Amino acid sequence: MQSIAIDMDETIADTLAKFISWYRRDFGVDFDHDALRGKEISSLVPPERRGIFLKYLDTPGFCRDIPVIPDAPEVLEKLNSRYEIYICSSAMEFPNSLKDKLDWTLEYFPFLTWRQVCLCGNKHLIQTDIMIDDRSRNFQYFKGRKILFTQNHNFSETGFERANSWKEVEKMLL
Amino acid sequence: MQSIAIDMDETIADTLAKFISWYRRDFGVDFDHDALRGKEISSLVPPERRGIFLKYLDTPGFCRDIPVIPDAPEVLEKLNSRYEIYICSSAMEFPNSLKDKLDWTLEYFPFLTWRQVCLCGNKHLIQTDIMIDDRSRNFQYFKGRKILFTQNHNFSETGFERANSWKEVEKMLL
Repeated sequence: MQSIAIDMDETIADTLAKFISWYRRDFGVDFDHDALRGKEISSLVPPERRGIFLKYLDTPGFCRDIPVIPDAPEVLEKLNSRYEIYICSSAMEFPNSLKDKLDWTLEYFPFLTWRQVCLCGNKHLIQTDIMIDDRSRNFQYFKGRKILFTQNHNFSETGFERANSWKEVEKMLL
Repeated sequence: MQSIAIDMDETIADTLAKFISWYRRDFGVDFDHDALRGKEISSLVPPERRGIFLKYLDTPGFCRDIPVIPDAPEVLEKLNSRYEIYICSSAMEFPNSLKDKLDWTLEYFPFLTWRQVCLCGNKHLIQTDIMIDDRSRNFQYFKGRKILFTQNHNFSETGFERANSWKEVEKMLL
């Protein structure tokens, strides 16, 4: 059975939506979705606020109820019967997110077990047959098949096999 | 630079000593160290208490101040300048241990960073050049060099390259 390492933030969790909602709550400012194309959200805020998103990620509760990316649960459930799936998140920078990320995964993807969750500092030591991630930097040491999950921030990157949605992943892998 | 995945419980953390100390506190019973040779501690307690050790592991604070295995900090500090080191612990069964395990690592091994910590459900997806672990089951899918760190419970296992102490690891790898 082939194995797949699946990223969490912005691959199965719509972390950007939660950033936008907390930023709106704290600063009364909204984001134009078109402006986010090809950009990091932190590059669109005043310099003194650029660290706020990292602070959000380490706030207890932030990672506990992030909305899921459309179709991720349905497609992962199908993948889970054909592949050895792992949810892998670079989370160690955010100690207060660790338990939230585990609990979130088990709530929103109830067909997965704790055995399938991996929270790491970086992904250099992760080797599976396939990796699905929105951050191409996580492919740097990865030897298997790399699938870049399209998100605003990676919109202009070239040179990677891409999936633009979970429906596309379904077609590619099932 | 070669990479090493180093286990936490009973490889760099003397979790058995902490089990013994909490069990003594809770039940007034001590363990004969000779009786532990080749045995799991859970096999030496009455059947109705066998789950207590898993319960301890998921108690907030339990994993925060476990004593270190002798010489681990000194040898890991030396290894850290010659290898890419990761501390890898199968911890997802114990959600309340996650932050404690990260904080413990950064306190007792202050030359390591959060980038070097990996908490997982199992170790099937970890691939480094070397793995040091007291549980041979973690070697099952591992393709690199496997070093079994001797502990009471694995005393009778054969067929693995062994290190009986961190001083021995130092001789083997430095």
